[in-house]
Amino acid sequence: MNKEQLISQIKLKRSFLCVGLDTDINKIPKHLLSLEDPIFEFNKQIIDATKDLCVAYKPNIAFYESMGVKGWISLNKTLEYIPSDIFTIADAKRGDIGNTSQMYAKAFFKNMNFDSITIAPYMGKDSVIPFLKFKDKWAIILALTSNEGSNDFQRKTLSDNCELFEKVLNISKEWGNDKNIMYVVGATRYEKLFLVRKIIPNHFLLVPGIGAQGGSLDDIARHGMNKDCGIIVNSSRSIIYAGKNKDFANESRKIAQKIQHKMDFLLSDIGI
Amino acid sequence: MNKEQLISQIKLKRSFLCVGLDTDINKIPKHLLSLEDPIFEFNKQIIDATKDLCVAYKPNIAFYESMGVKGWISLNKTLEYIPSDIFTIADAKRGDIGNTSQMYAKAFFKNMNFDSITIAPYMGKDSVIPFLKFKDKWAIILALTSNEGSNDFQRKTLSDNCELFEKVLNISKEWGNDKNIMYVVGATRYEKLFLVRKIIPNHFLLVPGIGAQGGSLDDIARHGMNKDCGIIVNSSRSIIYAGKNKDFANESRKIAQKIQHKMDFLLSDIGI
Repeated sequence: MNKEQLISQIKLKRSFLCVGLDTDINKIPKHLLSLEDPIFEFNKQIIDATKDLCVAYKPNIAFYESMGVKGWISLNKTLEYIPSDIFTIADAKRGDIGNTSQMYAKAFFKNMNFDSITIAPYMGKDSVIPFLKFKDKWAIILALTSNEGSNDFQRKTLSDNCELFEKVLNISKEWGNDKNIMYVVGATRYEKLFLVRKIIPNHFLLVPGIGAQGGSLDDIARHGMNKDCGIIVNSSRSIIYAGKNKDFANESRKIAQKIQHKMDFLLSDIGI
Repeated sequence: MNKEQLISQIKLKRSFLCVGLDTDINKIPKHLLSLEDPIFEFNKQIIDATKDLCVAYKPNIAFYESMGVKGWISLNKTLEYIPSDIFTIADAKRGDIGNTSQMYAKAFFKNMNFDSITIAPYMGKDSVIPFLKFKDKWAIILALTSNEGSNDFQRKTLSDNCELFEKVLNISKEWGNDKNIMYVVGATRYEKLFLVRKIIPNHFLLVPGIGAQGGSLDDIARHGMNKDCGIIVNSSRSIIYAGKNKDFANESRKIAQKIQHKMDFLLSDIGI
């Protein structure tokens, strides 16, 4: 999916919500466990209940990988089930030397046809470039993450007085453009969004961390939005585990609807 | 596998060689392609031909992931085929927020029973800790990698005058100890090994980059070894793709033997 298509979906649905499919066999409703593929069944119902309210789905690859071969089958089925006008994000945090990143790109963009993948930038340019060679596909590079450990290195000050995450933005934006690179900036870091927007005014940001991790949608929107909206805000656990019973998907829908409602206003506020 | 067992294997085999299983369906000998699982067949023959010469195998997970579900099956079979007294490294460069790293740890340590996994440190402490909770398992944290892109961030100087990779070593060594953490330092960076050893004198280093990537074994040994040997040196492409015909594994053995021979001398040099 290209940038124009993503923006038009945001306008159409009055939403910039991404639903994170962190599907954990130990957390899904018990009645699904007797089915052949409980993970896919859960995702299917979540997708059916939220697909008109969100513009993206983000399967967290670790959760599928932890299920072994069965998990990869559930992931493939889930990906095929997601409507083609919804942006898909492989939250995989991959990145390695060139010939190896090329293999990861093949796995997620060719074999699985994800629209995008999250990338850890520690290994630098040649670890990211292979992901930028696919038409209408995106590398979503970690800049400033929502977890406590983001202070360990991302917030360290460099000798030229900028923090490491700013350096990551400044250097990596030259590797591609705002049509094939997005950045992860955690919702708990909204006070840094002003700085982020000074470096990359036009790039889309993927913002995880509202809900279970404590970030606020208003704060993110106020500091992070640009004229195209420019942010995709993810919520995983607080949406998908909203209910525990047979009507769990309906509970998920209610939470997603609340968020979408807020997003509708926030889009209006900036004239979209 | 614990540290003592690894050291005793090094002494027994007079080797600190790791064979990298970067098995690519497009590069393996053509006669294997008609078999049911060519990737596993290739690995099986490489393992048979080199298992007395090396102390570790390192499947590069991207190569298996790029084959989809079939690739994961080949990987599982390969892992089961590796003798239990050989150290296994999942070269996966994983790392995410705590609850997600926990899933990756489950995938590689519980489901697949790897001894170790490579980790990208960008997300900090809580992204690494879940990998340290398993007895006799190891997190192998990227410090200074062998690729050109390592200059982009790893070599950046911080405000306290150390480079980022030094900061990664200094901070992360406190998260565990030399019995559950190793570090990746690329062979092309041997001039920095002196600095690395000042920060972590006792940790094992995983050193990729000899062979195809151009690093020299003598340089690494001279600058990186400690009293326990302290280094595992990986070679992938130059060993596994040494031959193209039916006797490919024998060609691989010859290269591995040459390296092991050199390692024997290098171990003697430091009194092991």
